[in-house]
Formats: sequence, C-alpha cells, structure tokens
Amino acid sequence: MEEGPALQLRVFDLNCWAIRYLSKRRQERVQLVGDTLRREGFDLVLLQEVWSEWDYSVLKEKLGGCHPFSHYFRSGVIGSGLCVFSRFPILDAFLYRYSLNGYPYMLQHGDWFCGKSVGLVVIKISGIVFNVYVTHLHAEYCREKDAYLPHRVVQAWELAQFIRHTSAGADVVLLGGDLNMHPEDVGIRLLRGWTGLRDAFAEAKRFEGCEDGCTLVPDNCFAAKTELQPFPLGIRIDYILYKAAARFAVRCEELRTTTGTAPGRDIPYSDHEAVMATLLVRRQGPAPGPTLGRAAPALADVVNEARTEVRVGLHAAQRQRYSAGRMAVLALLLLLVQAAAGLASLAGWAAGQPFPRLSFSLLAVLAGGVLLLATVLHLFHTMEVKMLQGTEEEMRLALRALQQRLAAA
Amino acid sequence: MEEGPALQLRVFDLNCWAIRYLSKRRQERVQLVGDTLRREGFDLVLLQEVWSEWDYSVLKEKLGGCHPFSHYFRSGVIGSGLCVFSRFPILDAFLYRYSLNGYPYMLQHGDWFCGKSVGLVVIKISGIVFNVYVTHLHAEYCREKDAYLPHRVVQAWELAQFIRHTSAGADVVLLGGDLNMHPEDVGIRLLRGWTGLRDAFAEAKRFEGCEDGCTLVPDNCFAAKTELQPFPLGIRIDYILYKAAARFAVRCEELRTTTGTAPGRDIPYSDHEAVMATLLVRRQGPAPGPTLGRAAPALADVVNEARTEVRVGLHAAQRQRYSAGRMAVLALLLLLVQAAAGLASLAGWAAGQPFPRLSFSLLAVLAGGVLLLATVLHLFHTMEVKMLQGTEEEMRLALRALQQRLAAA
Repeated sequence: MEEGPALQLRVFDLNCWAIRYLSKRRQERVQLVGDTLRREGFDLVLLQEVWSEWDYSVLKEKLGGCHPFSHYFRSGVIGSGLCVFSRFPILDAFLYRYSLNGYPYMLQHGDWFCGKSVGLVVIKISGIVFNVYVTHLHAEYCREKDAYLPHRVVQAWELAQFIRHTSAGADVVLLGGDLNMHPEDVGIRLLRGWTGLRDAFAEAKRFEGCEDGCTLVPDNCFAAKTELQPFPLGIRIDYILYKAAARFAVRCEELRTTTGTAPGRDIPYSDHEAVMATLLVRRQGPAPGPTLGRAAPALADVVNEARTEVRVGLHAAQRQRYSAGRMAVLALLLLLVQAAAGLASLAGWAAGQPFPRLSFSLLAVLAGGVLLLATVLHLFHTMEVKMLQGTEEEMRLALRALQQRLAAA
Repeated sequence: MEEGPALQLRVFDLNCWAIRYLSKRRQERVQLVGDTLRREGFDLVLLQEVWSEWDYSVLKEKLGGCHPFSHYFRSGVIGSGLCVFSRFPILDAFLYRYSLNGYPYMLQHGDWFCGKSVGLVVIKISGIVFNVYVTHLHAEYCREKDAYLPHRVVQAWELAQFIRHTSAGADVVLLGGDLNMHPEDVGIRLLRGWTGLRDAFAEAKRFEGCEDGCTLVPDNCFAAKTELQPFPLGIRIDYILYKAAARFAVRCEELRTTTGTAPGRDIPYSDHEAVMATLLVRRQGPAPGPTLGRAAPALADVVNEARTEVRVGLHAAQRQRYSAGRMAVLALLLLLVQAAAGLASLAGWAAGQPFPRLSFSLLAVLAGGVLLLATVLHLFHTMEVKMLQGTEEEMRLALRALQQRLAAA
C-alpha cells in the first residue's frame, strides 16, 4: 500500500531538570544539551522543565544555526517549562493549561506554580502538516499513596481531548513529554486508547538504550535513588507517541535513550534520560478509517477505570472543601464572640476585671487569619470539585458515545 | 452549485442573567425561558450566565421532552455559567478556560470567580458534524477607560485559536454567546478575521427585532440605563456566528431578537435580548478552499491592532507586578526592623523605657499581612505578564505566517 518516498524525521525529547537555584550543575547541563543538539541536528526538539527563560535563550542562541525556529510556552507563575526547537518553520502555536494541577499550599512539590500545560505547534514539512504536542504532567511523589492520581488522570484526559479535538486537520500527530506515568498506568492507557496514539518504544524496529526503555534509571547520578528502589531497572515515564491520518503512515525506525552520563562526560544531561526517535512518514493510498472494532469494549473499560479515579478524587475534594468551610465558620464564630466581648468591655460591663488587651488582639488576628485562609481554601477546593465533576461528565458522554458506536456496529 | 435538500437549524442564544441572590426575579425568568423554549422547539439552545446548577436542573427538567440532550460546563468557583440544550445527541464536550479573566480582588466585578470559558459540544445531524461553541467574555464596565480590554482581547484571541484548531473535523461551526464587544471592536474583528466566522445579523435574509440587532437596549427594564446613555438605540454584544467547511454552505434565513418584555408578560427574559437564528445548511460540490486574497492585509492590520492592546496590558501588568513586589520588600524590611527591635528589647538594651507591646504586635501583624497580600499579588501579576507575553508571541507567529502566505501568493 505504501507509495512515494519516505520522509525521515528525527525527534529528541528530554525533561531538562533546569530549576534555577535548585537543580545541580544546571548551567553546565544546559550548555551540554545545546552542544549535543547542535552536533546531532535533530529535526524536532521537545524539551520540558526549562523553567527559566534565561536557559531558553541560551539554547536559542546556541541552536540558532541548526534550529532557527523555536517556541517557548509561557504559563503559571514560573512558566510551563515547555519549549520546542525546530528545523522547519513553526506556523502556529497554542497552549492548553490543565484545569487541575496539584495544590498551591503544597509548596514542597511546587507543581501548582508551574501552570502545567500542553503546548501545540503546527509545522509543515514537504507539504505534510504535523501537529506537534509537548507536555509535562503532574509528578508522582509517592506511588503507594499517590494523592495526585486524580489530578494526573484529569490531565491525561484533557491531554487526550485536546489532541483529539485539535488534530483533525493534521496529517501526522506527534506527542513528546514527561507524562509521569508508567506504561501500564490508567492515564497512559486512557491517552493511547482515546487518541489512537502509538508508543514509539513499543513500535520501534530497533531499540538502543536503557533496558525496557526506562528514562529514570538508578545509573543516573542525579536520579532520586529512594524513589527507584522498587524498580531496579528504573521506570519509563518519558514518551514519544505518534499517529498518522488516513492517507499517511508513520513507522518508528529506531528509538534510543541516553544511558546515564552524556557521551564523553562525567555528568548526565538531566535526571531523566533523553528519548530519541527516528520516524519514517509515507503517503499512502486511502486507508480505511479507524474502526472501533474489538478495541471499543477495552476502551470503555479504561474510561470507566479513569472515571473511578476521578470519583475518588471528587470525594476527597468534597471532604476538603467541607473541612475548609467548617474551619471558616468556626473562625467567624470566634471573631463574633470576641467582638461581643470587646463591646462588653468597652461598655464597662466587666470593669472590675483587667482586660487582656494583647492576648485578645492576638487571638482576634489569629482568628481573622484562619478565616481568610480557610475561605481561600474553600474556594480553591470548590474549583477543584467543579473541574472533577466536569471531567466525570465528559467521560460519561464519551462512554455513551462509545456504547452507541458499539451498538451501531 | 447547491445540491441536495437543505437542513434547517433553529438556534436560540441568551445571556440569562441568573445570578443567585442578585438578579431580579430570577426564578420567575428561568421558568419563563424554559416555558418559551419548550413551546418554540429550537434545535439548539445556547445559554450563558446560568450560574446556579439548580437553575440548570430546572431548565433540564422542563426541556427534557423537547431537548433530551444537554451539557452544563463547570469551571471556576461559581461555574462558567454556560450550558447547551439540544434536540440531537451531544457526542462530545470539551471546555477551554481563558487564561486571563480579570482580577480576583475586583470583587465588585466578580468575573474572575466565574472561570470564563468557551464550551464546545459536537453534534451530528443527518450525517453533518456540527461543532457548537458557547462562550461569555469578560464584561466591559467602563467603555471610556476599559481596564479589562487587554484581557478581553486575549480572550477573543484564545477563542479564535480554540475554534481554528478544534474545528478542522467539523462540517459546520456555530458560535453563540455574549462576547461583550460591539460589532466594530477589535476583538470581534480579530475573531471573525482569524476564524472566517460570519455574523448571522449581517448575513440574515430577514431580520426582525431591536434596531441594529441590539441585544442590550434601554427598553429592557432590567438593563443598566447609565451604561446605555451614549447609545440611545442600545448595543449589540450577543452574537450567533457561523461558517461551513468546503463541501457545505450555510445561509442565515432569518434572525430575530426579543424586544424588551417577553410576549404576553410584563418582564423580559433577562437584561439581555435573546438572539434567534434560522440557518439553512446544504451540501455542495467541492468549493475552492478559503483564499486569503485581499483579506490578508486587513487581517494583518487587525492582528497588529490587537497586539498593540495586548502590549498596553502587558505594560500595565508589569507595573502592577513591580508595585506589588516593592510593597512586599518594604513590608519584609519593616518586619526585619521590628524583629531587631524586639530582640534588642529582650536583651534588655532599652530597659529604661517601657516597651509598647500591643502596638508593636499589631504593627508586626499588619506588616505580615501586607507582606502576604503583596506576595500573592506579585505572583498573580507575574502569571498575568506571562500569559500576555504568550499571547503576544502567538500573535507574532500568526503575523509571520500571514506575511509568508501573502509573499507566496
């Protein structure tokens, strides 16, 4: 069925771990990434965790010759950390911020401040329209008791929906990024099932790199060893995924990962390994459209599984909203009691006793502070509840549509 | 060129002004809207400002017979206020929240709390795929000195980008909503130019309703008279816009608006007038794709004009970020001076003088409060700056793409 010459596309994906003041040997590593990219001449470079625009401009200057086109996606307080470098003109860019992304008060995790997003750039190569997505989902800090799982599932759903709805005009769809999910996790299965994206690692004709394609490995001197203890080989959480429209075919010729240290150096590029894919894109005769066939019941199961996670998150968010609301009401009551006592003292009803002005004022300030904080928390969790309900409703619609398509088949 | 029978679609759009505890005669009006919709039997109903889910469920129950399919878009603290009722199955739903939407501290305006968004539902009628968008942009509180103009322009741009990127798979695109912009405003010109959407009012074969198609008119007893003083006829800020893919043609047969009071009643449906369009959709032979032609230079001008507004907003946001940062630094300095004085007093260096404990504590609390507030404000304006910069960059890309297409033509 294949026709015409193939277009070869070499894609590089890396979570750069470039957090200002925090990441070890950051500037040195950014320079190293820039030097390698300049030497290797990939067609497309998808980076995450380039938090500082200064680092982006260092890379931009270094890659100006080989990658004259680039886009940095701005979002949140710190930035989305996402950027794309391309050998081909970027025709359009668009950003979708995930509706849920952790909690602002979890300062030690900090995901909330990054405004985690998916960035889309549109590129045309030899008349073929590529929709290229780059993203970074909420981190998993504790796999056994993952409080962020519902948020990550919502992000995976929104990512899948964003890709589905924005890629109808594209000939080829590419997604690269740190998804913070293992290959068998519900979010990955949801993303792949709902979009039809294929995993470059699973499809590659040749593979070279860390065993099982892992991208967070104990051999990397920057990787957190404690997190990897249950996984002696490491884990695979960075992906390149792809699919083609009906008249095109994409094949992954080769997939590589870095393996700890950078070639000829004593440090790695990042705490993650880079993923590098060589893809072949070919025009082909009109292929049959994607048929749901036997995949549909499995897909419905995955959507149901994801919906259960969203529901778990919804219950937790409702509990937190209730607790914050109750705390606000209690603080308000305390303030009212204090106001009454203060007025009574002013009116001279307790003139015989000394009035403890300092501790009284401090208590009032404390109550005021708690009231303010609890109100803000209540509002935050109200938004969280709304977004989880919204996602659950979208998933319900998806399930109904799946069932109808199955019934009609 | 026209072929095949036409599909008639009757669309109803209304900003319902259903704010709990605030909007006058809200419940009565929601009932009235429900009764009218049940009687009139529109194919599609696009509503805004249905802030309370309770009102939505009242409508849902009332319209269950004639509009068995509906979707309520949840967002923000209060909700997006957007919902859709349809005679045909809703196959999919997706929400995009605008990245900028006023300021949380502008409590009297409250837009920030609504999480203003654009909702998309996908509907298939007789094999024709409709992408139906419903939205509500940030209100304009003072036309002479409109502090929200940059935010509204960003919203108009994001709306246009969202429609452009998500509608490639649709045969017909429909947008209904309260855009809070006059027909000649830069945001409307940007939206229409960048998406190719056509204005049902301008295209309608027959029109019936308020003069010039106005949807906020002095004759409406709920409309704010002072705002309308410079516009004796009223203003047109509610729209139905549409476009068709290459193999389809859409024509607006009739456009109507309500005119103040509801038929046979002493009150209007809302402070806005409803917009009702009768559209005819026809399949046609393959038409030439949209050519940029003579429209491109004008479109580039509009994007440039919008970009200037975004830049004005960017400068204001940078100034506010700087002021908030300076305030935070001053509060921190005051706290440090106080801490030094407190330590000195504890060490007994000023034992001769009485130490003013109460006023000292209150001042510390005040400084702490200012520090906290100024820090939050600084973070908020940092995000605002990032989003405005991001929009400006997207517009720059759009201009470059336009210029290249012009040069190639």
